[in-house]
Amino acid sequence: MSEASRAETFVFLDLEATGLPSMEPEIAELSLFAVHRSSLENLERDESGAPVLPRVLDKLTLCMCPERPFTAKASEITGLSSEGLARCRKAGFDGAVVRMLQAFLSRQAGPICLVAHNGFDYDFPPAVHGTRARGRQGYSLGSLFHRYFQAEPSAAHSAEGDVHTLLLIFLHRATELLAWADEQARGWAHIEPMYLPPDDPSLEA
Amino acid sequence: MSEASRAETFVFLDLEATGLPSMEPEIAELSLFAVHRSSLENLERDESGAPVLPRVLDKLTLCMCPERPFTAKASEITGLSSEGLARCRKAGFDGAVVRMLQAFLSRQAGPICLVAHNGFDYDFPPAVHGTRARGRQGYSLGSLFHRYFQAEPSAAHSAEGDVHTLLLIFLHRATELLAWADEQARGWAHIEPMYLPPDDPSLEA
Repeated sequence: MSEASRAETFVFLDLEATGLPSMEPEIAELSLFAVHRSSLENLERDESGAPVLPRVLDKLTLCMCPERPFTAKASEITGLSSEGLARCRKAGFDGAVVRMLQAFLSRQAGPICLVAHNGFDYDFPPAVHGTRARGRQGYSLGSLFHRYFQAEPSAAHSAEGDVHTLLLIFLHRATELLAWADEQARGWAHIEPMYLPPDDPSLEA
Repeated sequence: MSEASRAETFVFLDLEATGLPSMEPEIAELSLFAVHRSSLENLERDESGAPVLPRVLDKLTLCMCPERPFTAKASEITGLSSEGLARCRKAGFDGAVVRMLQAFLSRQAGPICLVAHNGFDYDFPPAVHGTRARGRQGYSLGSLFHRYFQAEPSAAHSAEGDVHTLLLIFLHRATELLAWADEQARGWAHIEPMYLPPDDPSLEA
């Protein structure tokens, strides 16, 4: 990425979904945290010197009821189920979700760099939780967090909990990761969709 | 509120703003957590029996740069400033915020009951932080939290931190507070605006 187009805002995101890629999973929860570059270049720290979440932070977390059922494993890991989401009368991934995502991103200064753990394999192509197990264990979110903070991450495998963990890990290595993103970030057009869902008129914003 | 119209979803909210009501404050941060009634009637608890946040929870937190400056006191309490928000290139309370609020609320099963600490005086009429100091000390968010949890609330005086505290307090007395809300909740039309801002075309959704 050239200096002229380097990211102004970093949007950290995570998804929870109904199962493995082979079953064409549906998104059941998404979470986005938007952080301006200036907050990553000028970290706030606690008394011990550890980086803390920036004070200026936009956040969106939404649950949605998929049409397909969860696999037992996905339900166990995420704590979500079709029954639980239906009990809370959650709608599916509909036009209101699209409008919120559009409006949320429109409020962030661009260019925007999306950041996800396992994003190229998992979150950017509408993707699925179970694939994480294929990742190298040493770079799982949990083990990275443990390495930097000597503690277990909170709310693992909720979309928001995992974004929180991802952002704290990023803050811990912010200087290197900003430089890496400036060099290595790929354009959205380079992301292959995991699968092409059928046309769905409810998604029109 | 009659049985037929009792709230299906409770949206807990908090605002941070630029100063006292007398200066016609502007909103600088807002946070909403949406929780379905079924989650409040069937609480999840940790090992010690204390209620924990429901797994199915929608959340929206947005920062926005006001046109008017913060009072020194509001800036000190909230940790926000015009300079900090401008450095993060935050837009004001614009049409994208309105669209997000509309879409966020449209995804919650209705009727919706808005819940805010000091809401009738403070959050529902676009309102201001400083008024809290006028509240009875024994019912401040901090002292209520301390009474139930024997600990200090986290991230006090960020909009999201205060909604988190408010929701935990609500969960601690959920049965009584649900019954209270069914009886006592007032319609939105009963809320007097704090002041009427000039027409602003940027607010059109």
